[in-house]
Amino acid sequence: MLSKNIHTFLDCDADYDEARAVLFGAPYDSTTSFMPGTRFASAAMRNASVYLENYSPYQDRELQQAKIFDSGDLELPFGDNEAALKLIEERVVIILTDKKLPVMIGGEHLVTLAAIRALGQHQPELEIIHFDAHADLLDEYLGVRLSHGSVMRRCGELLGAGRIHQFGIRSGTRAEFALAATGFTNLTKFDFSGLTDTLAHLAGKPVYLSIDLDVLDPSVLPGTGTPEAGGVSFQALLEAILSVCQNTNVVGCDLVELCPPADTSNASTLTACKLLRELLLALPTKED
Amino acid sequence: MLSKNIHTFLDCDADYDEARAVLFGAPYDSTTSFMPGTRFASAAMRNASVYLENYSPYQDRELQQAKIFDSGDLELPFGDNEAALKLIEERVVIILTDKKLPVMIGGEHLVTLAAIRALGQHQPELEIIHFDAHADLLDEYLGVRLSHGSVMRRCGELLGAGRIHQFGIRSGTRAEFALAATGFTNLTKFDFSGLTDTLAHLAGKPVYLSIDLDVLDPSVLPGTGTPEAGGVSFQALLEAILSVCQNTNVVGCDLVELCPPADTSNASTLTACKLLRELLLALPTKED
Amino acid sequence: MLSKNIHTFLDCDADYDEARAVLFGAPYDSTTSFMPGTRFASAAMRNASVYLENYSPYQDRELQQAKIFDSGDLELPFGDNEAALKLIEERVVIILTDKKLPVMIGGEHLVTLAAIRALGQHQPELEIIHFDAHADLLDEYLGVRLSHGSVMRRCGELLGAGRIHQFGIRSGTRAEFALAATGFTNLTKFDFSGLTDTLAHLAGKPVYLSIDLDVLDPSVLPGTGTPEAGGVSFQALLEAILSVCQNTNVVGCDLVELCPPADTSNASTLTACKLLRELLLALPTKED
Amino acid sequence: MLSKNIHTFLDCDADYDEARAVLFGAPYDSTTSFMPGTRFASAAMRNASVYLENYSPYQDRELQQAKIFDSGDLELPFGDNEAALKLIEERVVIILTDKKLPVMIGGEHLVTLAAIRALGQHQPELEIIHFDAHADLLDEYLGVRLSHGSVMRRCGELLGAGRIHQFGIRSGTRAEFALAATGFTNLTKFDFSGLTDTLAHLAGKPVYLSIDLDVLDPSVLPGTGTPEAGGVSFQALLEAILSVCQNTNVVGCDLVELCPPADTSNASTLTACKLLRELLLALPTKED
Amino acid sequence: MLSKNIHTFLDCDADYDEARAVLFGAPYDSTTSFMPGTRFASAAMRNASVYLENYSPYQDRELQQAKIFDSGDLELPFGDNEAALKLIEERVVIILTDKKLPVMIGGEHLVTLAAIRALGQHQPELEIIHFDAHADLLDEYLGVRLSHGSVMRRCGELLGAGRIHQFGIRSGTRAEFALAATGFTNLTKFDFSGLTDTLAHLAGKPVYLSIDLDVLDPSVLPGTGTPEAGGVSFQALLEAILSVCQNTNVVGCDLVELCPPADTSNASTLTACKLLRELLLALPTKED
Amino acid sequence: MLSKNIHTFLDCDADYDEARAVLFGAPYDSTTSFMPGTRFASAAMRNASVYLENYSPYQDRELQQAKIFDSGDLELPFGDNEAALKLIEERVVIILTDKKLPVMIGGEHLVTLAAIRALGQHQPELEIIHFDAHADLLDEYLGVRLSHGSVMRRCGELLGAGRIHQFGIRSGTRAEFALAATGFTNLTKFDFSGLTDTLAHLAGKPVYLSIDLDVLDPSVLPGTGTPEAGGVSFQALLEAILSVCQNTNVVGCDLVELCPPADTSNASTLTACKLLRELLLALPTKED
Repeated sequence: MLSKNIHTFLDCDADYDEARAVLFGAPYDSTTSFMPGTRFASAAMRNASVYLENYSPYQDRELQQAKIFDSGDLELPFGDNEAALKLIEERVVIILTDKKLPVMIGGEHLVTLAAIRALGQHQPELEIIHFDAHADLLDEYLGVRLSHGSVMRRCGELLGAGRIHQFGIRSGTRAEFALAATGFTNLTKFDFSGLTDTLAHLAGKPVYLSIDLDVLDPSVLPGTGTPEAGGVSFQALLEAILSVCQNTNVVGCDLVELCPPADTSNASTLTACKLLRELLLALPTKED
Repeated sequence: MLSKNIHTFLDCDADYDEARAVLFGAPYDSTTSFMPGTRFASAAMRNASVYLENYSPYQDRELQQAKIFDSGDLELPFGDNEAALKLIEERVVIILTDKKLPVMIGGEHLVTLAAIRALGQHQPELEIIHFDAHADLLDEYLGVRLSHGSVMRRCGELLGAGRIHQFGIRSGTRAEFALAATGFTNLTKFDFSGLTDTLAHLAGKPVYLSIDLDVLDPSVLPGTGTPEAGGVSFQALLEAILSVCQNTNVVGCDLVELCPPADTSNASTLTACKLLRELLLALPTKED
Repeated sequence: MLSKNIHTFLDCDADYDEARAVLFGAPYDSTTSFMPGTRFASAAMRNASVYLENYSPYQDRELQQAKIFDSGDLELPFGDNEAALKLIEERVVIILTDKKLPVMIGGEHLVTLAAIRALGQHQPELEIIHFDAHADLLDEYLGVRLSHGSVMRRCGELLGAGRIHQFGIRSGTRAEFALAATGFTNLTKFDFSGLTDTLAHLAGKPVYLSIDLDVLDPSVLPGTGTPEAGGVSFQALLEAILSVCQNTNVVGCDLVELCPPADTSNASTLTACKLLRELLLALPTKED
Repeated sequence: MLSKNIHTFLDCDADYDEARAVLFGAPYDSTTSFMPGTRFASAAMRNASVYLENYSPYQDRELQQAKIFDSGDLELPFGDNEAALKLIEERVVIILTDKKLPVMIGGEHLVTLAAIRALGQHQPELEIIHFDAHADLLDEYLGVRLSHGSVMRRCGELLGAGRIHQFGIRSGTRAEFALAATGFTNLTKFDFSGLTDTLAHLAGKPVYLSIDLDVLDPSVLPGTGTPEAGGVSFQALLEAILSVCQNTNVVGCDLVELCPPADTSNASTLTACKLLRELLLALPTKED
Repeated sequence: MLSKNIHTFLDCDADYDEARAVLFGAPYDSTTSFMPGTRFASAAMRNASVYLENYSPYQDRELQQAKIFDSGDLELPFGDNEAALKLIEERVVIILTDKKLPVMIGGEHLVTLAAIRALGQHQPELEIIHFDAHADLLDEYLGVRLSHGSVMRRCGELLGAGRIHQFGIRSGTRAEFALAATGFTNLTKFDFSGLTDTLAHLAGKPVYLSIDLDVLDPSVLPGTGTPEAGGVSFQALLEAILSVCQNTNVVGCDLVELCPPADTSNASTLTACKLLRELLLALPTKED
Repeated sequence: MLSKNIHTFLDCDADYDEARAVLFGAPYDSTTSFMPGTRFASAAMRNASVYLENYSPYQDRELQQAKIFDSGDLELPFGDNEAALKLIEERVVIILTDKKLPVMIGGEHLVTLAAIRALGQHQPELEIIHFDAHADLLDEYLGVRLSHGSVMRRCGELLGAGRIHQFGIRSGTRAEFALAATGFTNLTKFDFSGLTDTLAHLAGKPVYLSIDLDVLDPSVLPGTGTPEAGGVSFQALLEAILSVCQNTNVVGCDLVELCPPADTSNASTLTACKLLRELLLALPTKED
């Protein structure tokens, strides 16, 4: 007798009960302003991950040790932001209720709001570390308040001012930068300057790490919807991710805005896979 | 002194007052199920139209004679279906109020609903001729009732049963075909069989012609979001369009679902341009 | 608790015990002469099948009715033809032993040889219906006797002369056409002429249907490794497949040589999915 | 000792002295109006021809029998039309002087003018059979009289009215169609209607066959600079080419406007290769 | 009543009278040696600029403050270098006569010669700062003296030796480097070493800044016709541009050799847009 | 009379007798794990090299001075590893017998084994310098011992432990890194750290330099089958190559794993060409 076709990211095939972290895809892709296609990210990453090693020479560790369960992709209603966010939030709540750490693959950045809605209730002290090219602090766009350009504005409104720590930001309106300057967020332009200090400041607090892949330079990751020149290198992002995981209490995280059709070479998808592998390997392995 | 950069489809540069028909783009692209990118259609068509002749050897007529005004693209809020539809409806109402014929370039097929909402009020006898690969008669998808898969369901609910005449349909759920069979629409599978009879039946009535470009075989137009094998040829579609324009009273029309990024050869965009040229040339030139 | 991520072609999610047919992927891709990439076909088809309806307006039937079990992809050793063929043969033997019908997605055409090795033992009267642009009757190429250009030569040697019925052939060496003319195969050039007679002749006999997708015209399916102009239309191929399934006793079948990277529009992959859906729907539903 | 790397189209490796026809590439590409890239056609065709059989099942003949010498590509100065035409003309003159038949691979269609300048002197009775989507009868464009849109105007001026027989034409200005209607050319719109009569009329006269590949439907050959919907099928073009070669005295020919970068699937390049193989096989094999 | 469709780069919508700088496109593309397609650059940049912010976090300034008028694209005759240069020169003369600063988007690099012809007459002291991978100092190529490989040779002949300051150069013939070494130009290999000294030396003199985008590393900008490995980073180029604008009297500038079809990810086009935004923001805002 | 079409990389057109080094292509591509297509590398590089200068501003030298003979591509049997390796080995033996230096363009990395088999017999002291992202030290994969992932394991078994010096390695299984750590190879992770010391250590010994282009960061060279983020820059690789050639006795070398179809911009192919030019210019010019 033949078995069913289980499809996981790399070796994320732990038993659910034993799993420390639970991976899932949130392929929502309705409010993207330029090139759409993030809906294909999680499927593309699972397919491409076959060609990645499960061993990291950076961390000297194999993915099986990380005990990850890949719960697959949500089915989300395109064109209905609130309905989609609700479905994502429900998935995160289940994972949190089962005392596991949620790891979400986007989709567009709006999906992060659903995770913060769920986590914010479990973790009133929650802080967000946000790596991105864009400030994502728009109040609204043509009357729409839920979009990938507004996601950190909405998260900040939920958590209160000063709880979001942004790095790598190199695009936004004058108003967005001005809002950040009021203390709404802790915004660092262009790179990861000051990350060490921020991490020291956040020691002991629950942290959600949201990685918009366009924080990378477009040379490294052209496969994203709104590539923005002048970004960080792969090595810089990798070090920043490892630093966050090693120095704070990460309680949830996401990797968003990979747009596979925008890079026909597959290099962007493989780079996203490698970052996800390193992130999964760096997550805390024991219950806190 | 230099003049501003006016950007029109081919030679659609009539004065607004003299124009018989008004072209506009509705680059909405939020509910597409597979490959997104219809948002780029109208801009791509204007750019590519430079390389098209304004003369049609099929109709022995030049586009300047058709007196078309290109009013450019609407700016639409991705991810808010009702808000987007409202903005489109307002544009159509202006055009109708000024006694001109609206010609809309999509975007995804949902945009047609806005045109029908506007036209339905002006033309209570309105009938729709619908060329498409897909029935577009879903009641909802994951709870969402406004999507490119439901657009003819919504139009039919507005106008009443029996007012939509569908041709070329080769994809749908069993329920959609069953609904059509109840008389909700007049559905012809695969091709344009019976079009002549339908047109005779519609003589004298106001007709809206909605052309989903995926009615074409994917060999002819791979640049669409959900290509469906087994479609009609360019010649068959061209003849059908001319036949509709010559034998009924077309009061509005659209060309939707071109997805330029899906065809890097540009052939799909040029084919859409040629069909639009022929459609514009075939529209009635005098007031009714 | 969350469930595992089961990944199937469309709705091929029957229980194994109840399944009449078993689908599997054989992503072997080592001897392709021109553009490689068939290794990605089965995964691409599963992903794209999400966007296909499970209902066929051609056959008025839904895929769930066909009771198909998708057993996923084999892991095959690139560069070792015999080892790969052996693994494929083992999978087919299991399926046959369990009294189910094997449906294989290639991979390059060489994989068919493994199915014939397995089936030939169960069905000594086996006949092959072969749709292809290429004769695939080379004796060897640079000394290599196992390649996608030799697969029907090897199958014919296994089954004996006159057991292979080829249609659509429009490419080969002079020697290949000459071999066919000796009666080694029953070869029809360019199209499906004479298929009805052949099917009448094969009535009652066990038939293996091997569909090399490059039998289609490259306009319909550019996404294959060696596209060859002058092929058949989608409608012609669909009718031929249905005709074979309705008029003979199909005991196994395959769909090979889809090369997804060669068609960035995804139209080729979707066309292959649609043909597979129709093939699965047309297969015999009861035990013989 | 190792030999040099001789690079020919398929098996066009006859000795020059024995060769009946001489192939060469004229990769000029400076006046193309839309998508450029024809400069890569001849190199792409040589590379892709490796994957084509040298045997034709259409003509039951192998390419070695046709005794073709491939003399490689000219090096042409982009941006200097007259200089480029002069270099091409010199190559054609050498071939004619050596009593061989020139077969040119474009490049853009302007290159045909050079061949006609050379042949017109050798063959004062020369007639041109022209397969194309475009009339190519513009007098000038922005003051430029030498461009791919004017090439048949210039050829007609050289040879005199009534010497050019155009088929498949489906694009042009009103003025171009009007010029043809005066008898400047013998223009057939859309397809090959009347070709048999034309060939009968040309019996015994020297004929130059110029094949602009965009006469094909873009579904068959998207890889061209100005694809124009509504073209002929591969089979129709193949039959027309064979008919011309069998029924007239072809003294020179070309295949132009393949634009490889516009079709990343390579199918267009392979289709062009197959047409060239058939053309070479159909050319007269003995001295006239 | 609806208004016409005005199409500008980002927010370059100042009134002509108030504008300090005038943008225009010169989509000439006839002498490019490798991959053509620069003809599409200005249209692609206008379309993509919609997705760029008008605010620069590098200069803390918004584009509206820069008062730029976008006068659209010239229509240029492909294949006639002198005619095209003349049309470009006329446009530049109008802009200069109206006491505004010309900003040209190429097209291939040859277009710079037209700007220098116009500016050289207004500014006899003109110096050129030239960022490029290629020396562009060829005397001729196959007899053609006007090409993108000769443009700085021609400019140098016009202005006299020592007036061109080249940075980033990493490709050329031995003869080109030898010519530069004679003092014909002031050539810096590979990067911007010595730019500060050069700018100090040019203080007070009128400067034309010509930016061939291939000065960037191909990783940053693959979308160019002749990508050349080993180039400068985005940050280095941005700093160099700002430095030139802040330390010299820029009287005209261009951005050339973007080839959009060569980068299907759009990242190259967006990078060019961002550089143009920064350049426009850095230009002098008051009359000199 | 016209001459044959000789096709060489750039100006590698020395007479065989005078040539110091002999270039050849080994387009084998059967065991690649992810994206195949290296079979097209050598042809693509010859075509693209036309657009490269023969002069190096890095070494102030022209390619003609290097006296290279390009002997073209081997024809290799896909799917038969041993047969292919034997054909490559024969070519290398001829070159060595003629006292010339072999320079091989892959193809996949497995081809290196053939060169080492040939050279190992001539040079019992042979050492390998290996630049790569991957350790290539797998013992077997699904039973296959000859693949691009095992090539350095096989080479090491041939030459004995400690003879392979690996740089840039950032991917492998735990077992591969562990094997290297036993002294099987001298492995440097991530970059070229310690290269100078290694070269000093190898002074006077015969060295084979094997450059897997995926040692480069995917931003620099996306056109490879298994791009791996975190690689070295172009400048770093160029310096490393020059350093090896200047400080050791290079007796053979290769450049492998370019996969042209994976990078539609051609930038990867041009970058490979430039590296090959620099490598050829840096090779020893006199007999040792």
